[in-house]
Amino acid sequence: MTLPAPLTGVVPPVCTPLTPDREVDVPSLLRLVDHLVEGGVHALFVLGSTSEAAFLTDRQRSQVVEAVVGHTGGQLPVLAGVIDMTTPRVLDHVREVTAAGAEAVVVTAPFYARTHPSEIVHHYRRVAAASPVPVVAYDIPSAVHTKLPADVVLGLAADGVLAGLKDSSGDLAAFREIVTGAHTLPRFSVLTGSEVITDAALALGADGAVPGLANVDPHGYVRLYRHSRAGDWDGARDEQDRLCALFGMVGAGDPARMGGSSSALGAFKAALHLRGIIDCPVTAEPQVPLSGEEVEKVGKYLAGAGLL
Amino acid sequence: MTLPAPLTGVVPPVCTPLTPDREVDVPSLLRLVDHLVEGGVHALFVLGSTSEAAFLTDRQRSQVVEAVVGHTGGQLPVLAGVIDMTTPRVLDHVREVTAAGAEAVVVTAPFYARTHPSEIVHHYRRVAAASPVPVVAYDIPSAVHTKLPADVVLGLAADGVLAGLKDSSGDLAAFREIVTGAHTLPRFSVLTGSEVITDAALALGADGAVPGLANVDPHGYVRLYRHSRAGDWDGARDEQDRLCALFGMVGAGDPARMGGSSSALGAFKAALHLRGIIDCPVTAEPQVPLSGEEVEKVGKYLAGAGLL
Amino acid sequence: MTLPAPLTGVVPPVCTPLTPDREVDVPSLLRLVDHLVEGGVHALFVLGSTSEAAFLTDRQRSQVVEAVVGHTGGQLPVLAGVIDMTTPRVLDHVREVTAAGAEAVVVTAPFYARTHPSEIVHHYRRVAAASPVPVVAYDIPSAVHTKLPADVVLGLAADGVLAGLKDSSGDLAAFREIVTGAHTLPRFSVLTGSEVITDAALALGADGAVPGLANVDPHGYVRLYRHSRAGDWDGARDEQDRLCALFGMVGAGDPARMGGSSSALGAFKAALHLRGIIDCPVTAEPQVPLSGEEVEKVGKYLAGAGLL
Amino acid sequence: MTLPAPLTGVVPPVCTPLTPDREVDVPSLLRLVDHLVEGGVHALFVLGSTSEAAFLTDRQRSQVVEAVVGHTGGQLPVLAGVIDMTTPRVLDHVREVTAAGAEAVVVTAPFYARTHPSEIVHHYRRVAAASPVPVVAYDIPSAVHTKLPADVVLGLAADGVLAGLKDSSGDLAAFREIVTGAHTLPRFSVLTGSEVITDAALALGADGAVPGLANVDPHGYVRLYRHSRAGDWDGARDEQDRLCALFGMVGAGDPARMGGSSSALGAFKAALHLRGIIDCPVTAEPQVPLSGEEVEKVGKYLAGAGLL
Repeated sequence: MTLPAPLTGVVPPVCTPLTPDREVDVPSLLRLVDHLVEGGVHALFVLGSTSEAAFLTDRQRSQVVEAVVGHTGGQLPVLAGVIDMTTPRVLDHVREVTAAGAEAVVVTAPFYARTHPSEIVHHYRRVAAASPVPVVAYDIPSAVHTKLPADVVLGLAADGVLAGLKDSSGDLAAFREIVTGAHTLPRFSVLTGSEVITDAALALGADGAVPGLANVDPHGYVRLYRHSRAGDWDGARDEQDRLCALFGMVGAGDPARMGGSSSALGAFKAALHLRGIIDCPVTAEPQVPLSGEEVEKVGKYLAGAGLL
Repeated sequence: MTLPAPLTGVVPPVCTPLTPDREVDVPSLLRLVDHLVEGGVHALFVLGSTSEAAFLTDRQRSQVVEAVVGHTGGQLPVLAGVIDMTTPRVLDHVREVTAAGAEAVVVTAPFYARTHPSEIVHHYRRVAAASPVPVVAYDIPSAVHTKLPADVVLGLAADGVLAGLKDSSGDLAAFREIVTGAHTLPRFSVLTGSEVITDAALALGADGAVPGLANVDPHGYVRLYRHSRAGDWDGARDEQDRLCALFGMVGAGDPARMGGSSSALGAFKAALHLRGIIDCPVTAEPQVPLSGEEVEKVGKYLAGAGLL
Repeated sequence: MTLPAPLTGVVPPVCTPLTPDREVDVPSLLRLVDHLVEGGVHALFVLGSTSEAAFLTDRQRSQVVEAVVGHTGGQLPVLAGVIDMTTPRVLDHVREVTAAGAEAVVVTAPFYARTHPSEIVHHYRRVAAASPVPVVAYDIPSAVHTKLPADVVLGLAADGVLAGLKDSSGDLAAFREIVTGAHTLPRFSVLTGSEVITDAALALGADGAVPGLANVDPHGYVRLYRHSRAGDWDGARDEQDRLCALFGMVGAGDPARMGGSSSALGAFKAALHLRGIIDCPVTAEPQVPLSGEEVEKVGKYLAGAGLL
Repeated sequence: MTLPAPLTGVVPPVCTPLTPDREVDVPSLLRLVDHLVEGGVHALFVLGSTSEAAFLTDRQRSQVVEAVVGHTGGQLPVLAGVIDMTTPRVLDHVREVTAAGAEAVVVTAPFYARTHPSEIVHHYRRVAAASPVPVVAYDIPSAVHTKLPADVVLGLAADGVLAGLKDSSGDLAAFREIVTGAHTLPRFSVLTGSEVITDAALALGADGAVPGLANVDPHGYVRLYRHSRAGDWDGARDEQDRLCALFGMVGAGDPARMGGSSSALGAFKAALHLRGIIDCPVTAEPQVPLSGEEVEKVGKYLAGAGLL
């Protein structure tokens, strides 16, 4: 399915369920996709950070795209992350995920090497020139340690290099600058990656949201999106407040024992397991698993939000 | 060739010459290897940061290891970087580079994901358990945005998980803590990645050095190493002073126009090209090339050091 | 005048006009205060970052508080910053500014020393114990290089140590956590320090705003606040959009020539000078002044917003 | 006493002993000074970071300078820190400490405000123009969050603005660049602030050292300095190894309970107390005190180094 221009709505970054020996659990993945589609989401984003793309081998990445694209069969667009350090490596992933059927690629700034804004621009131009599908920029400074400057994003959008932006920077002021700058670019899609200020991002003009927590509660984010589009800001805020409380689950893991990725991704998977959607809550290595007590905490968040 | 325990001496991180269309230029690579071997270096480190490993595709990485191992034929050990984000992806690289003949693998902390020290420990244990060859830790906070704690390194060394450390942190105080802690670990190799305080690192007990600039002047670093081993600290410092001046070339690129990697790696390759060792000074994308004027600056550094 | 509990509304961080020889220009300061009061602001915050408090001597700081408190005569509350590195030095400022009539003190986390959250807690407890007036926490990680954790702020609020928070972190997700946590603390005031997402902060429940740009356009921020309180979110957004465009002035200074403080504070003062409110746009040393051309840019922002 | 040009040797940053109610304990301070002078140090640096200058009130700062200058009576030079955020505030401290007899002032880059290199240059020029005594630059990025660029330091040194540099950056490569650049500036003094790579800094040409640990063991650092000057690098390294082991005391405090300043400064003061030099080991607020068990650890470090 061709990517709408602009892409709008709720676009969950789809978790990648694993088997106990850490292979992709395709049946669980497809159940998760059904759960999201049934929840009313508008597109799917596979191989993002929430999908543990940084932990999946190339073989596993292709397996995920093929399984999801094959299963959805054009019902809704499937975007795929191509997370890697530099242009040549990203181009290899672009070839793989588009061969497997991805309808857009989601591309971060280069990382590992020390990178200049002019190199970021060149990176996106080169990837877009070689990609058979639209390119969405992925701004995630916590991972790549560079913030995509607003003028860089808007310049590339104006030149038709970028079809959209997924903003996971947490910096709503910079996000607004891009939303405002994109008023003259009606086909460019500005998406927030935040779970907890989604209503605010939509209120100031975002086209949609890519919240990891939408794996756990797609219906909630779809309701939030619809309230926003209807101008029902009180309804949007109430839904957002409920989702903010639910999002507390990402702190379930003990910070003395594990990093933030282990805790957040472990909590999402524990929640999907507790809700009966996936078979096994394991995360990829070297992440630390949640303890039984920590999983119980996740269950309490679900119960508090009326999901268990 | 089996890795010596401990590995000592000068171990250049070998640049990866590219053709104008950015494929590995194997004949140039082998001429560079000959130049290094003739210069008296003690081992070779391929696929490190200076090798632009972050920019090479998987296919190109294998090509480099095969070419170098095939060419050196066991004259000296070949270590290979397996730079990637997380355990499963690193393990894929370990399989590839050891199949291609690497005699040790050089492994950074995980990156992209937010990582806890306990996850770093688990990462190294899993990689070492699966690797058929020794594992050397690669501490490069400027790239991975985590510093390997001294107690983590020493603990893994004591357990036999790590065979050595390449320290590119620039933090000589932390490096010394590891050198001192390794006094009871006579087979563990502590190597500095610095070009400009190599003499100081050797004076306080480092086993060797992995300086990127040794691509350009292997003889200089070998002389520096020999002076140090002979206790001739005045000779070592004089050689180091000459190499420090030569290292100024890494600033040849205009910081308003390019990042630090573009400038430093561009300068090393320009120097190798000017010295007639490689055919083409091009660096991988999205790096910015040096201008003609900037290449002239590199030439002046070479002339100043008596290398042109 | 006693601080309302909670403090609500628009609370501009009052610029400190200087004479050409960089003494406090009291007549200009009082004209600025009149301009703000006439604009309908709800309280005044002197000696904040926008006030160049970090650049004012102790003598000048007292002079500012005395002049403003003397001039307003209890019409509206005057809060004063007590920006300094550690508890004993902050306590000295508390004595000075309360002797001069400040009705609340605004206190950052300790800086310069490497500080632990437990030390931040102890700092606020000690300051509050010694202060004759309420203490407002000032979260400004760009200056002090520590983010006040939400649980620390809420814990201190629950214990009555803190009367409010001024959040200049730019992190709306963390801000929301505090707003939500403060629902059970009806006397605790949560204020955003942002100029450009003020509407979003108010929509999610903030009590008010402390925008530096309100020096230049107090009427605009007061209108924005009133629209928000009336639930007129479209009106709020339109006003905010106009203010966002006006805020572009903070980038008037050339980043190759000056830091962000020089540019932003220089622009605010240039705007006040162009509007005829203050006599001289000079900023304190070592800040770099705007060039004539850069001042012209500021003028264009004013004209664009209908202020010139 | 006039500052020698260049200043050389061991220049301890003198701890500031406090009474239990956190006033300056002048008798203890003077005993500490006697201990240092008897240990053979070459100058004294009061009001540095190790002196808790960031925690002392203006009154206490003056008290320290007056007491020390009055006590030493010109036997050796007394340098004084003037740590504050910006030029006007630093100039006030310069007036105070020089009135109290300081023979040089030690000045950091501006902090709190976002600072550009051109503003750093202007800051030092303004301070030097107004100071009746020589200005030494203090490079301490961990506190001020800016690194003094080598070319800035060398440019100011060449212009006679700076008489020396105290480098507490931990970056020996950058330090070497300054040492080398200062070869043509024979009156400019380049001092390392490191406790644990002092031998390396002296070996590559530093003029001296400003190690906090010299409060505890001045004799050790003076021996280290003499070995270095005599070219006895083995002797220097042995002394340095002993001092490195002793320096382990800075980690005595539990990092789950306190910040690095509390632990390091608490350990130095505990050691001075255990050695009978000062009456009370208390540190300034909001620092967390060492527990009894942690003080015992400090005692073991002293015993291990033969100091108890």
